[in-house]
Amino acid sequence: MVPEPRQAGLNILAFDVFGTVVDWRGSVARETRELCLARGLNINAEKFADAWRNGYAPAMDRVRKGLLPWMKIDQLHRLILDEIIPEFGLESLLEPDRQYLNGCWHRLAPWPDSVDGLTRLKRRFTITTLSNGNFSLLTNMAKNAGLPWDCIVSAELFKHYKPDPETYLGLANLLDVNPEEVMLVASHPSDLRAAKAQGLKTAYVRRPLEMGEGSPLPEVFSGEFDWAVDDFNDLADQLKK
Amino acid sequence: MVPEPRQAGLNILAFDVFGTVVDWRGSVARETRELCLARGLNINAEKFADAWRNGYAPAMDRVRKGLLPWMKIDQLHRLILDEIIPEFGLESLLEPDRQYLNGCWHRLAPWPDSVDGLTRLKRRFTITTLSNGNFSLLTNMAKNAGLPWDCIVSAELFKHYKPDPETYLGLANLLDVNPEEVMLVASHPSDLRAAKAQGLKTAYVRRPLEMGEGSPLPEVFSGEFDWAVDDFNDLADQLKK
Repeated sequence: MVPEPRQAGLNILAFDVFGTVVDWRGSVARETRELCLARGLNINAEKFADAWRNGYAPAMDRVRKGLLPWMKIDQLHRLILDEIIPEFGLESLLEPDRQYLNGCWHRLAPWPDSVDGLTRLKRRFTITTLSNGNFSLLTNMAKNAGLPWDCIVSAELFKHYKPDPETYLGLANLLDVNPEEVMLVASHPSDLRAAKAQGLKTAYVRRPLEMGEGSPLPEVFSGEFDWAVDDFNDLADQLKK
Repeated sequence: MVPEPRQAGLNILAFDVFGTVVDWRGSVARETRELCLARGLNINAEKFADAWRNGYAPAMDRVRKGLLPWMKIDQLHRLILDEIIPEFGLESLLEPDRQYLNGCWHRLAPWPDSVDGLTRLKRRFTITTLSNGNFSLLTNMAKNAGLPWDCIVSAELFKHYKPDPETYLGLANLLDVNPEEVMLVASHPSDLRAAKAQGLKTAYVRRPLEMGEGSPLPEVFSGEFDWAVDDFNDLADQLKK
């Protein structure tokens, strides 16, 4: 009962989601393939998933430059979907199918270690998302996939997409901690570098299947990040949790 | 795999927290009593808890009127604490004790039915907070008390306190649902009336011990709210979950 000083050190683990926690490429391809099969359409589903994802950074840039108003990722995904549908010859997909397909980003499947590893890490740390996915997307995904977050934090709350500094600092402010009490866990070096520049700790997770089997891992410099791990159980092991 | 239309009806249960989910009065009184005992101070701990809570609505009003800048409830709680400390003869409490005591609002204990009832309701609904408590307070409280929220929503996200309409509508917007797909669950009629005015469904929870044993329940008109329940298990029963 005697007041204790606040525990210094690491308190919050903030996770990038698309690619780091869930297999967006495999999940989007699977749903696309199934829908096209049901509608009698041919599709290279992995190529379609890649095209959809490739439209994402340029679409966020259009918002940053003021060419588009602020919008949720659901809306950006839909803009991109409507752009690539003609490229893949899917014009016959009707509005309900397009809405349903756009929702596949709410239903992405976790990597095999994600739920177990997060459950272990949650015993010691506050675990949260820090994703460009909108708040409802991340909430629905967690419920669907059984991801045991302590809270949902989305770039939507800050009206800034990662890697804008407002997202990393906004999360620290929301949780009332100093940036160095937060560690970003991500499979993308650009995200980690931006977090590090704002004073957050960083853990790089190798996700060799994110871009499909046989694709190269991103280049990371030795010692660039505080931790480099193979998956979330490895992170729990290395943090001795 | 064939697209299904979105399920109409009720999808989100949003819970008021102080008094509805947790016993703020009993918890604040207990921590205050223990701290004062350790410091050799006499205290009427329940009266102290009431005085602290009674400062809360006027403090929010000062923010609404622009007499104070927007601030987190942690900061409002601290302002009120410093105001009532002389009234209770606690001037000898030093800064670390005051900080610690202010944090007691992060450590409030749930009512006996809260965790079980929420766990049942979570199977069917997305369950979230909708509280004036700041985001970190609600996150810490959930971790401490084992409250199984799907997500944390705080008035802090909207820079408006309940019962301002921005809070109820902001939650619906964040979760991408229509107001009528959300039900506010609360033990305070004023909160429920404000939610109803914005189109939300409402469930009134009787919490006869919120203000201490023997205190009267607030006045509620017959049929005023969609549901009236004795606790969260009763709500789950009545919703047949």
